[in-house]
Amino acid sequence: MNIINRSDTLIEDMLKGIQWAYPSLKRIGNTHGFCKRNMNIEQVPLISGGGSGHEPSDWGFIGRGMLSGVIMGNIFTPPTAAEIIDFVSQAAPKKRAFFIVKNFEADVASFQDAKKKLELMGWQIGMCVVADDVSVENISLKKRRRGVAGTVFFHKILGYYAENGASIAQLQKVADSLLPEIKTIGVAFSGSHLPWTKKRTFSLKDGEIYYGTGIHGEPGYRKEPFKSSELLARELINKLKLNFSWAPYDKYALLINSLGGITIMESMIFNNDIRQLLKLNKLRVVYNKNGSFMTSSGMNGISLTLFHIECEKWEKALKTPVKTPSWFN
Amino acid sequence: MNIINRSDTLIEDMLKGIQWAYPSLKRIGNTHGFCKRNMNIEQVPLISGGGSGHEPSDWGFIGRGMLSGVIMGNIFTPPTAAEIIDFVSQAAPKKRAFFIVKNFEADVASFQDAKKKLELMGWQIGMCVVADDVSVENISLKKRRRGVAGTVFFHKILGYYAENGASIAQLQKVADSLLPEIKTIGVAFSGSHLPWTKKRTFSLKDGEIYYGTGIHGEPGYRKEPFKSSELLARELINKLKLNFSWAPYDKYALLINSLGGITIMESMIFNNDIRQLLKLNKLRVVYNKNGSFMTSSGMNGISLTLFHIECEKWEKALKTPVKTPSWFN
Repeated sequence: MNIINRSDTLIEDMLKGIQWAYPSLKRIGNTHGFCKRNMNIEQVPLISGGGSGHEPSDWGFIGRGMLSGVIMGNIFTPPTAAEIIDFVSQAAPKKRAFFIVKNFEADVASFQDAKKKLELMGWQIGMCVVADDVSVENISLKKRRRGVAGTVFFHKILGYYAENGASIAQLQKVADSLLPEIKTIGVAFSGSHLPWTKKRTFSLKDGEIYYGTGIHGEPGYRKEPFKSSELLARELINKLKLNFSWAPYDKYALLINSLGGITIMESMIFNNDIRQLLKLNKLRVVYNKNGSFMTSSGMNGISLTLFHIECEKWEKALKTPVKTPSWFN
Repeated sequence: MNIINRSDTLIEDMLKGIQWAYPSLKRIGNTHGFCKRNMNIEQVPLISGGGSGHEPSDWGFIGRGMLSGVIMGNIFTPPTAAEIIDFVSQAAPKKRAFFIVKNFEADVASFQDAKKKLELMGWQIGMCVVADDVSVENISLKKRRRGVAGTVFFHKILGYYAENGASIAQLQKVADSLLPEIKTIGVAFSGSHLPWTKKRTFSLKDGEIYYGTGIHGEPGYRKEPFKSSELLARELINKLKLNFSWAPYDKYALLINSLGGITIMESMIFNNDIRQLLKLNKLRVVYNKNGSFMTSSGMNGISLTLFHIECEKWEKALKTPVKTPSWFN
């Protein structure tokens, strides 16, 4: 049961609600996209987007010092290349933009195609593909490399650089250096579902946890009965640790993201368990964020992102206050 | 299924998580309370609190321009008078404070008792009891007058006045004038439950909505099959309308609060339906806030608060940016 009207008006109803709630966002024509009102035309516009159903991603991060604009598709379906081109043509008057794209086949294809076509029309386009998910295939153990909640750190860091006058080439360089330093793993207590159906992407037994699931309800690597916040923290930190070469006193930022249905009480209890483990590992957590940043329609679950702050400037970028609907420092 | 460790460490685990996540909050001794770090001792400390299980209420609103401190009890149980006195004695060095209390019998008794005892010890204490819930008893139709999500507007407005040097008497006067202007009604799609049990406070059939429920899972006034966001908006606006004498072009602030489990997509769709109705009623919405501000452990539900901005200064107070974990403008 979801608070909606009809499946065919769902996206438009939501877009109208966003317009009412956040006057700092400007709807672009008839597209499913918003950009920052009073955009600074001197900076390279930072554009993200993808399927809906992950709110507040990504429109919740539009604002000074973060994203310039976001173009959305239908639920779990990215916008087409034509929709991206239509949006960017209206939102980015200086024929240049930098795209932040999550690593899903359909998303990359749309944005890649739009990039190519815009370049043929004389645009300058930069693009990074975020692939922070360190979950693995169940049998092959092959890495999945999906783009998930860590994407929001890209929005924040690249947003800082873009606001401070970075060129497309400079943004590209920063994005490339961020890629190996941001890793996420997610778990679910239920599959996701479209708001007008009850059919879930996967089913779990009562009290079961599924490790390594994706934000569209992609399968994870193991199901087992959930035991405690502390054991969950251990499992996720162990998996992330395999993907970093961490040394004592390294600086890290931490993002605990509700994929849906997690209370703030649970988030705080889990935060405590994670912080205790990171302390045992002698890591310095210089930034700790909890909330709902990238969700999965109908899912009950949580994800953990670690960001190795390799470069001093990233810490400053992270800590510079911004004003967006869903991120505020 | 909840991300916890054990029921007997639940509150302490959460408090530790909060300390890690929000260094701007200072834990007061061994109490279940926090206050703002670097408190401005020139202002009257604004203190709230009550049972846990409503996170981020109320600690999420501690910060410059909002609350000075919060003392919590166990889940759905307010702190005792002794706990309040212990907390205030450490947090408010100048022997004065103003309490914001939600209108539940046990909460009012604890804070009232603490007030009386502190006054006998020479303290100056002001206190307001928020009773914004306009839900009614099922049969008698008697008003319930619980203190629910509208309390957060009290935190914001009184926080502004306190920061700007208001005395206890002045805060009392503002609180008295706010009381009739802030009204809330909530609905649930499931009862609430303690995080370590599955036993819900009430049960609903699949797809059923319960109008007028409280934040501890108190019963509402009617159950029926949920139809649509638009019909929900009509029902709630009609109930609120009975409690205001609104005239065209009156100014209102709007708070749509997830009691738990509501996606941002749903919140935006509902926001659109509410705004359309308020527009039909020719009201001017000068402030629109959506999010999770006062929740009910384990509940799936939403509440709607309207705040009639009778006084110009309230609009300014509402729009003055603050820095707290859960409220940021």
